[in-house]
Amino acid sequence: MAIVVQKFGGTSVANAEKIRRAAGRAIKAHQQGNQVVVVASARGKQTDQLVADALELNPNPPKREMDMLLSTGEQQTVSLMAMCLEAMGQKATSFTGQQIQMITDNLHGKARIQSIGAEKVKEKLSAGHICIVAGFQGVDESGNITTLGRGGSDTSAVAIAAALGADECEIYTDVDGIYSTDPRKYPNAVKMQQISYDEMLELASLGAGVMHGRAIEFGKKYDVTIHVRSSMNDNTGTLITHEVPQMEGIVVSGATTQKDLAQIALIGLDNTPGNAAGVFAHLAASNVSVNDIIQTEVNSEKATLSFTVARSDLDAAKQAIEEIRKQIDCESVFIREDIAEVSVVGVGMRSHCGVAEKMFNALFAAKVNIDAITTSEIRISCLVDLADAEKALVAVCDAFELDKPAEERTQP
Amino acid sequence: MAIVVQKFGGTSVANAEKIRRAAGRAIKAHQQGNQVVVVASARGKQTDQLVADALELNPNPPKREMDMLLSTGEQQTVSLMAMCLEAMGQKATSFTGQQIQMITDNLHGKARIQSIGAEKVKEKLSAGHICIVAGFQGVDESGNITTLGRGGSDTSAVAIAAALGADECEIYTDVDGIYSTDPRKYPNAVKMQQISYDEMLELASLGAGVMHGRAIEFGKKYDVTIHVRSSMNDNTGTLITHEVPQMEGIVVSGATTQKDLAQIALIGLDNTPGNAAGVFAHLAASNVSVNDIIQTEVNSEKATLSFTVARSDLDAAKQAIEEIRKQIDCESVFIREDIAEVSVVGVGMRSHCGVAEKMFNALFAAKVNIDAITTSEIRISCLVDLADAEKALVAVCDAFELDKPAEERTQP
Repeated sequence: MAIVVQKFGGTSVANAEKIRRAAGRAIKAHQQGNQVVVVASARGKQTDQLVADALELNPNPPKREMDMLLSTGEQQTVSLMAMCLEAMGQKATSFTGQQIQMITDNLHGKARIQSIGAEKVKEKLSAGHICIVAGFQGVDESGNITTLGRGGSDTSAVAIAAALGADECEIYTDVDGIYSTDPRKYPNAVKMQQISYDEMLELASLGAGVMHGRAIEFGKKYDVTIHVRSSMNDNTGTLITHEVPQMEGIVVSGATTQKDLAQIALIGLDNTPGNAAGVFAHLAASNVSVNDIIQTEVNSEKATLSFTVARSDLDAAKQAIEEIRKQIDCESVFIREDIAEVSVVGVGMRSHCGVAEKMFNALFAAKVNIDAITTSEIRISCLVDLADAEKALVAVCDAFELDKPAEERTQP
Repeated sequence: MAIVVQKFGGTSVANAEKIRRAAGRAIKAHQQGNQVVVVASARGKQTDQLVADALELNPNPPKREMDMLLSTGEQQTVSLMAMCLEAMGQKATSFTGQQIQMITDNLHGKARIQSIGAEKVKEKLSAGHICIVAGFQGVDESGNITTLGRGGSDTSAVAIAAALGADECEIYTDVDGIYSTDPRKYPNAVKMQQISYDEMLELASLGAGVMHGRAIEFGKKYDVTIHVRSSMNDNTGTLITHEVPQMEGIVVSGATTQKDLAQIALIGLDNTPGNAAGVFAHLAASNVSVNDIIQTEVNSEKATLSFTVARSDLDAAKQAIEEIRKQIDCESVFIREDIAEVSVVGVGMRSHCGVAEKMFNALFAAKVNIDAITTSEIRISCLVDLADAEKALVAVCDAFELDKPAEERTQP
């Protein structure tokens, strides 16, 4: 008997009608002969309301208590959905993260899953129940409630699918799959039929908010296909899966822009071993997460070290840089906030030449100046003027024909 | 170092301002050198809202899932109060019922506490934290969340006080103590300074809704004084405590009326051994809770067996009686719904004569007919016409001078 894991996000369980619809979908899968596990998020705006309640009492609430508070949102959804299923004649049991022994580390607010004891779920599945598990939450080894951070319910769902040995995890959402780029910025973007874990990881790290990176990592590690699809219809969505041969033909699967960045460059840095490491150690100690790093040597003694950070981390980054300048010789620091990054991602890049050239030409033709370039094996990113971000994305999407289904694109 | 347990009900934590006030009270007790544990209920109307959410999806929700849902209300309060205390500069940690290992049986919706593992609370208290524990909730041996039923947070608080070896448990509420009778029905009712566990148990079973019976039983069993007091001021409230010699002088401590009753009489019942037991076994199997029972023999062969039930249980009781009449010979069944019970309670009755006479005379003078009488060692109850209920209560309260402080009343 196959095990199906279905995850419903907050908008898909926002009210009684939507909970009923999600329950109906779970029952349908059960009637088709599957064992069904539902993973649910907090209803609609519940989490926002709880955050507001917290901030009214404490502008900087302790993270442990915040997790204790926020985890109630998912607990409410799963019990309500179990009641709904029972009302529809289906045996059902809900579980908190604690009850399925979703053990995490103790980093409240962004905990990482360490293990899942799925025995109770298996027991109830064997007894014909649909099991509804609260997403987003776990407990640390001392029994404190933890939460997994943004997109955490996706991670819960994929991790549970892995723990139960399910082949597929369905992620129900308010869009009908993953698009080649953000349709709000490029209206002709097409829905992808499938995409590899690696590409999806790159896109997630580039701010394409569809899926949490951790969820994708779990899928890749434990061989769980992730099916992102609409909660409003029965259409097939996008499968996130292992790389298959035909993916190699697709040079560029998706494109993104990131606009919440700042660029920092340390100019005339002493080019001695350990200096760069010192800079990033300092930034890490200040909890600044660093994106693309570029180092260029001016001569054998001096170098320019450039990197990007989230704009929200810029103040912390500046402070860390001031500290490090007391220890490391550096001529000047250049900071730029009106910057954006345009990226293309595709596993086909590995085996095709001319991808970078095509991207640069497209930007040139659109009169977009490129300030910096970084690449990975399956990604090319260009820093551009913030004002040019939208124009640059459209130019790149047009060039790589992201308005057409993958199989209809011109091969390079 | 003394341990103080403070319980705040839903109205005392209904909004941010009230949570701050409750937190301030806990901090004050902490600054006075006590170790402080706060037990809190769900905020204001939260539980009502959750019940409404549930009924929208299932008119008869499974009790396990209802407990799962409702327990989130208290979890929200305790985390918010911990945040509030931290904002006020006080270290604080919140706990769910599961986290303090409040183990109960598995009777969802009216579970009974079996044990409490207070180690984590003790640890945090020793580290200078105020601990905030979610009332009303526990877990069964399999880890399912349970709730303790109406007034359950009081029971949680007294049980935690007992587990920690605290001398006193403070119950903060929106009235300033326990009154000799309901002030809405008898405006001159006086606040009691103290009352014995046994009297309070009788009053609770007579529907005086101030305290849950189980909470009082815990207090009695584990020697915890229960201090019922106002969350709005610092006045001493009412102490529920072991019987002390001066209580004996108080003939009647309190009076009540119960108006949600129905009387059932089985007339001309075969007076053979086991018949009465059969009747009550059948009623118990139908989940009908039976109050006062009176049996009178008509002759050696026939008897009349009369008892009262909650009016909400009347339909179930009627059905059970129809069943039993197939097995037991009984001439007729008399059912009366327009009935009320007036009761007086006091440990002084044990050593004073004339209490019943005084009560009957008062009712006679008020032209209230008495339909039935039952007594216990510390209680006298009269069934009267429902229309006479208020008049009867006033007559009895006047007769026993329940408008005066106990020490000023005329001794019989």
